[in-house]
Amino acid sequence: MRMYDIIEKKRNGEELNSEEINFFIKGYTEGSIPDYQASAFCMAVYFMGMTENETVILTEAMANSGDTVDLSMFGNKSADKHSTGGVGDKTSLIVAPIVAALGGKVTKMSGRGLGHTGGTVDKLESIPGYKTTLFQEEFISQIEKVGMAIIGQSGNLTPADKKLYALRDVTATVDSIPLIVSSIMSKKIAAGSHNIVLDVKCGSGAFMKTLEDAEILAREMVKIGKGCGRNMAALITDMDRPLGSAIGNSLEVIEAVKVLKGELVNDLKEVCVSIASEMISLVYSISHDEALKMVNDTLNSGKAFMKMKEWISAQGGDTNFIDNTDLFRKAEFSFDILAETSGYITSMDTEKIGLTSVILGAGRASKEDSIDFSAGILIYKKTGDEIRKGEKIATLFTNNNASLDDAVKMYNSSIAVSSVKPEQKPLIYKIIR
Amino acid sequence: MRMYDIIEKKRNGEELNSEEINFFIKGYTEGSIPDYQASAFCMAVYFMGMTENETVILTEAMANSGDTVDLSMFGNKSADKHSTGGVGDKTSLIVAPIVAALGGKVTKMSGRGLGHTGGTVDKLESIPGYKTTLFQEEFISQIEKVGMAIIGQSGNLTPADKKLYALRDVTATVDSIPLIVSSIMSKKIAAGSHNIVLDVKCGSGAFMKTLEDAEILAREMVKIGKGCGRNMAALITDMDRPLGSAIGNSLEVIEAVKVLKGELVNDLKEVCVSIASEMISLVYSISHDEALKMVNDTLNSGKAFMKMKEWISAQGGDTNFIDNTDLFRKAEFSFDILAETSGYITSMDTEKIGLTSVILGAGRASKEDSIDFSAGILIYKKTGDEIRKGEKIATLFTNNNASLDDAVKMYNSSIAVSSVKPEQKPLIYKIIR
Repeated sequence: MRMYDIIEKKRNGEELNSEEINFFIKGYTEGSIPDYQASAFCMAVYFMGMTENETVILTEAMANSGDTVDLSMFGNKSADKHSTGGVGDKTSLIVAPIVAALGGKVTKMSGRGLGHTGGTVDKLESIPGYKTTLFQEEFISQIEKVGMAIIGQSGNLTPADKKLYALRDVTATVDSIPLIVSSIMSKKIAAGSHNIVLDVKCGSGAFMKTLEDAEILAREMVKIGKGCGRNMAALITDMDRPLGSAIGNSLEVIEAVKVLKGELVNDLKEVCVSIASEMISLVYSISHDEALKMVNDTLNSGKAFMKMKEWISAQGGDTNFIDNTDLFRKAEFSFDILAETSGYITSMDTEKIGLTSVILGAGRASKEDSIDFSAGILIYKKTGDEIRKGEKIATLFTNNNASLDDAVKMYNSSIAVSSVKPEQKPLIYKIIR
Repeated sequence: MRMYDIIEKKRNGEELNSEEINFFIKGYTEGSIPDYQASAFCMAVYFMGMTENETVILTEAMANSGDTVDLSMFGNKSADKHSTGGVGDKTSLIVAPIVAALGGKVTKMSGRGLGHTGGTVDKLESIPGYKTTLFQEEFISQIEKVGMAIIGQSGNLTPADKKLYALRDVTATVDSIPLIVSSIMSKKIAAGSHNIVLDVKCGSGAFMKTLEDAEILAREMVKIGKGCGRNMAALITDMDRPLGSAIGNSLEVIEAVKVLKGELVNDLKEVCVSIASEMISLVYSISHDEALKMVNDTLNSGKAFMKMKEWISAQGGDTNFIDNTDLFRKAEFSFDILAETSGYITSMDTEKIGLTSVILGAGRASKEDSIDFSAGILIYKKTGDEIRKGEKIATLFTNNNASLDDAVKMYNSSIAVSSVKPEQKPLIYKIIR
């Protein structure tokens, strides 16, 4: 078999078989197939697409290109969630304890933040003592005992995807649905959970800018995940405004704690309840409504909050910070953003808001940057809200006073105000099962 | 400027500007743009094509990527021909002396044979003493004195094309009209001639299998050559049968000599007269009919044959071999192919006939192979001819007796015979000016 023939076949719009796709992924991972053939192949896929069958095979080939996590001891109870990346998205910190409190086995390997979106692992590291690395046996044993664990990606997970994504990133072949789907889903499949719920973000701060694109991606991922033998659901949620009101690592942990304590009822809570309900619905093969009732009960009873403490403690974190979030170190400098004019906020550029938090020190512009856990933004007014001139609409926090000017400019430029109240967009556009 | 943006722009179907195309060719030639970006770019061009303007810029950028030959001292008289490669194609050996005898300045840099087609340089090396390498000054001075020179490709001509072609060859991106056109035309433009006539072969033994494809390629090359400021014409000629009756290096030289001596009137002569007339028509800006008369006159007067001897002598070749072709060394073994049945030859697979000559030792299967100058085939019956069972239709020549069995099988498998006389296809399909 020759890679040349595989490229030509795809270029001519023919369907590749399992042997061909596995030959490509194996050879590319090992290095016997060079980058220049892989990039020509990806460009051919960009133009000719891939069938559902091809995408399932590609996803499985990439999932099996490195280490895989065996969660078979948890039967059908293992559950994972994945967000395509949003600003202020701390849903994992809330959803995982809810699902674990209800008997699901939540196994999550999360990434670090880069660019305008933060990473769950960075957020958790703002809790003193929290270990984001566990040995495989510790990981499994914690899931058995506590029902959940959230760690950083470790080991040699999906090396084919790592290599291929880096190549696509420099050859203008990222924007291809089968390649996006196989990249995301291969990591989820390798991570081993039987039930997977996706949160596909849609809007200015998301990878998918339009509902149409987000829905295509969501439907494909659900289809491919099912093709790989997993239970699947996907929510399409709004990212034309940040989720919740906190952006920045410890600020987001604090917001998550408040939701689990029942102190906060907002858009963040609504999305988390929906995601958790989808996961419980898959884990127990019950209706969304039944699952929703269980989720609300466990939140209201305080069991989800107790589960969070149990989990943080199991992973070495100091739960005093969870009981009393005032213990989190405050940023040295803060600056209130005041409304420059009266009216309604008609739009928020969430990508710019994410970048504001990076300027303040809460995120990374490049992989090597360190993170300031206490930096970030608290947002008081969001799209659709009425504001009056001089009213406080947000507060910026940083330990680097010199960054404030740029951050204020960036934040102000992210917001549009008009005298006409904008039509409110839904928070959750669709659920695809 | 980033190569990423250039790939993306082409991928999105936009037209690239001169700065972008030159950035790509310069960077790729120097090595600052990696193969994997170039191959993704080529695949994007495969799908999205290139405008005439883009192809002209690409052709000029590749022509200027290395050495170029300055023929400005010959004004508008310099003339070159190019064939897309056929079996038995020895037209350069005949056309060049005709045009030089009529005052054109024929400057030809030819390649060596590889695969099923032979190379002009190999054929000329079968003449004892013939030098295929000349210093630039010798080359120019010979053209001044004799009116022509045929040498091998030397120096650093179109390194961008060499590198890009090698890459396209392994990434399934050869079959793209703008990339084929810019590859061929960049070499012709760098070689410096003002008048360029192309012989685009069409049929089983050619790169372009159908008349439709050959015409698209021919029209594009004429357009792009004109866009680069050259006088252009292209013939589309048949390659569903070998050209002339000899295949193999010294056998082809002998056939060329016979045509120039006026001893042979066949399809080979007809194509040569047409190509030469097109070249003369361009050189003197006269009609094809006027040029045709000049060409026939110079052939009939023996001036073209005298020019051949003058040229061979100037390049160190022993002209005794031209005066008396019996001096060429004969192959040790020969084998007559007899008709297996009576009827008409309805088709000849010229690619297989070319491969027969390679088996006999006349060509190269890989770049490192040496060549047996006396090996080859003499063909007595071609497509459309009536044959009788047992009649001699061809003779194979070789110095490697062991190859004969395979060669005979291959030759026989290349010919189809039927009792119905086939419709005769034209030899010259079209002339595009």
